[in-house]
Amino acid sequence: MNFEIFVIDTFFEDYYNDAISEYAKRLGRYCKIKLTKIKDSSSLEAALNGKAYVIQIRPRGRSLSSEEFSRELSNLATSGISSVAFIIGMKYATADESISLTTMDLSPALNTVCLYEQIYRAYRIIKNEPYHK
Amino acid sequence: MNFEIFVIDTFFEDYYNDAISEYAKRLGRYCKIKLTKIKDSSSLEAALNGKAYVIQIRPRGRSLSSEEFSRELSNLATSGISSVAFIIGMKYATADESISLTTMDLSPALNTVCLYEQIYRAYRIIKNEPYHK
Repeated sequence: MNFEIFVIDTFFEDYYNDAISEYAKRLGRYCKIKLTKIKDSSSLEAALNGKAYVIQIRPRGRSLSSEEFSRELSNLATSGISSVAFIIGMKYATADESISLTTMDLSPALNTVCLYEQIYRAYRIIKNEPYHK
Repeated sequence: MNFEIFVIDTFFEDYYNDAISEYAKRLGRYCKIKLTKIKDSSSLEAALNGKAYVIQIRPRGRSLSSEEFSRELSNLATSGISSVAFIIGMKYATADESISLTTMDLSPALNTVCLYEQIYRAYRIIKNEPYHK
């Protein structure tokens, strides 16, 4: 699976960049994952390029448990979808679905860290591997 | 207000410790906040010492928006409660309430970062200050 996370271009503290690098490294054995910062939502359409299944992350999206999120990713893969785009911190009206990591507002940087952590956790669940760290 | 966050004693990555230090520093002007790692839930009762209002953080707790969470903290303060204990990563049957930061499972360290961020955000909302960072 190819994941691309599109996040509004705000300041990312070093500690959040470090966390993202660590999860990206751990995820390397399961998938391709890329983080793209976007100036504003009007640039999104061109960046998305119509090729990916688009999931918007927002507080009022559908709430999922980690197990449900892992099943969701697994189902996408088995239904032949090879590219998933996540959108954080921007409105995008025509997303395929909206999910909620939390009903609270998190900074885009912290939201991104949580999404990486959940994708990593999803693969650990899918592969039936313990979540050590 | 005095906050004490009791979290199960697991490995905290450096980047999460750095994030927590940063929020603790920013929160210094609004409240006292302390992080206490606990070996297991059986040590909780003694550590809590019966003096604080106890909020358990868990995926199946009550979901709140950031605004609702800030009102909750504000209401506790105006009702004369001066100490609030949060519990992360442990079961504690007699908590005063349970709230959910996310319906997904997060590592205790990342959960702690999100809680610090939300407490900081709550104060910015209460004080009507913009959330710059």
